[in-house]
Amino acid sequence: MAKKKSSGVDQGGATRLLDALRVPSGPVDLKAWDSRATPGFNGTKEEGKIALEALEPEVSDWQERLFAEGRKGGNRRVLLVLQGMDTSGKGGVIRHGAGLMDPQGLRITSFKAPTPAERRRGFLWRIRQALPGPGLIGIFDRSHYEDVLIARVRNLVAPPVWNRRYEQINEFEEELAESGITVVKCFLHISPEEQKLRLEARLDDATKHWKYNPGDVDERELWPAYTEAYEAALEKCNGEKTPWYVIPSDRKWYRNWAVTTLLLETLKDLNPEWPEADFDVAAEKGRLAAT
Amino acid sequence: MAKKKSSGVDQGGATRLLDALRVPSGPVDLKAWDSRATPGFNGTKEEGKIALEALEPEVSDWQERLFAEGRKGGNRRVLLVLQGMDTSGKGGVIRHGAGLMDPQGLRITSFKAPTPAERRRGFLWRIRQALPGPGLIGIFDRSHYEDVLIARVRNLVAPPVWNRRYEQINEFEEELAESGITVVKCFLHISPEEQKLRLEARLDDATKHWKYNPGDVDERELWPAYTEAYEAALEKCNGEKTPWYVIPSDRKWYRNWAVTTLLLETLKDLNPEWPEADFDVAAEKGRLAAT
Repeated sequence: MAKKKSSGVDQGGATRLLDALRVPSGPVDLKAWDSRATPGFNGTKEEGKIALEALEPEVSDWQERLFAEGRKGGNRRVLLVLQGMDTSGKGGVIRHGAGLMDPQGLRITSFKAPTPAERRRGFLWRIRQALPGPGLIGIFDRSHYEDVLIARVRNLVAPPVWNRRYEQINEFEEELAESGITVVKCFLHISPEEQKLRLEARLDDATKHWKYNPGDVDERELWPAYTEAYEAALEKCNGEKTPWYVIPSDRKWYRNWAVTTLLLETLKDLNPEWPEADFDVAAEKGRLAAT
Repeated sequence: MAKKKSSGVDQGGATRLLDALRVPSGPVDLKAWDSRATPGFNGTKEEGKIALEALEPEVSDWQERLFAEGRKGGNRRVLLVLQGMDTSGKGGVIRHGAGLMDPQGLRITSFKAPTPAERRRGFLWRIRQALPGPGLIGIFDRSHYEDVLIARVRNLVAPPVWNRRYEQINEFEEELAESGITVVKCFLHISPEEQKLRLEARLDDATKHWKYNPGDVDERELWPAYTEAYEAALEKCNGEKTPWYVIPSDRKWYRNWAVTTLLLETLKDLNPEWPEADFDVAAEKGRLAAT
């Protein structure tokens, strides 16, 4: 028998990527996760880019089914939460992964430092405002997790305040799950060495200067404290229905393929059906023919 | 000399599509616009689809420049307004044309019948809420023009009310232009025969039933009244800086290529430059190297 040319996607095992990248319950040690690994994919960078493009028809089709369901009374939604250190590629995933989908079915929110008005309303208020409507795929570029990450590392609030937030986040996310939102939380995991290369690249290319912020170097100095804060969040807010996934992200092409594959598997699990006609098809054909 | 294979894009004239499709000032007679024509393109359907895909790198690059400008204090924005009869392809343009761009730089709003709360606030209130922020490309699937289209045809408000709206719209759009928004208003022009085919196709395909609404046939019966209302809007709200474009839309591939080309030409006219560094590049390289 002729061997089929491998596309790079590891089809040997029955393991879904959702299972392979899921953070097990218990303490989290990010050193144990290799940020250059490519679980579920054993091909080259070029094959990885082709594999990503190849997801387009399928992911678009499932997205449209979910959208159609939402238009006909369904209430299910997906929320992709993207977290990671500067340059880990939250924007890149949206551009190259979510960019394969119909933008009408996406609701993308990029969270910056909260405004004073937002702060007064409690840290979850602006998050609730940004939740996707029925049938949509919401994407958060940063999220409520900043309130236990930078807020903790930078002492923006007192320890008892950020300490309480883990439980508040858990209750909030359980509420989301109960209301029909499938939450997919991805930590884009890069090494400090890879971050240095990416920041250097931004400084070396005048068309990327706008992406560089001197504050990025200050944050970089706090790498160990951020790692600790991420480990705490991944451990404490890793519910059965609201799990975390660690995406090895030193290879951009793998990161984009992996997150898009997680989305595709999530949509397939939801298995939205094309809505049935809520009108008499034959009668409508007659009415239309008469015009 | 060997002939170059034509890509279908009409490169003979110096005419930009923005000039070719612009509605001249004065009375508008939609019968004079051929809805099957393909101005600026003399290739086949297949060539048209390839030509659309070929716009991706350029339109993405210009979009990112505008986005970068907006992130660094610039205030310019683009607003694409899509209007047209049912099935004319407003959603298709977004899916296939805007879908070529980074979804992070898009702000898409689909306007349905206004809610009672929206109605109480005046017809332009919800439109203002949906305007794109700096550096973004806003896309309206239907717009404030519905308030002089269905509102006029269906007598949703008294004639003096809708009659006043043309001037209110002109003042509103002038304000937008002055505030840095380049407004590109596209009327997707289809024939009633083409609409019938498209509605039949929706009834014949169970995966498209969710897109069909029995009300579409009722609206279809009012085709002449809608044509009159569109002609009035295209004539009365066709300012120097806020012009209308008629997009022949019986051929879906042409429609998608044409609107995307209008967007590309608009971005090129704005000519956003990559922002200069607002920090000392050499000093930052030193700081980064020390980490």
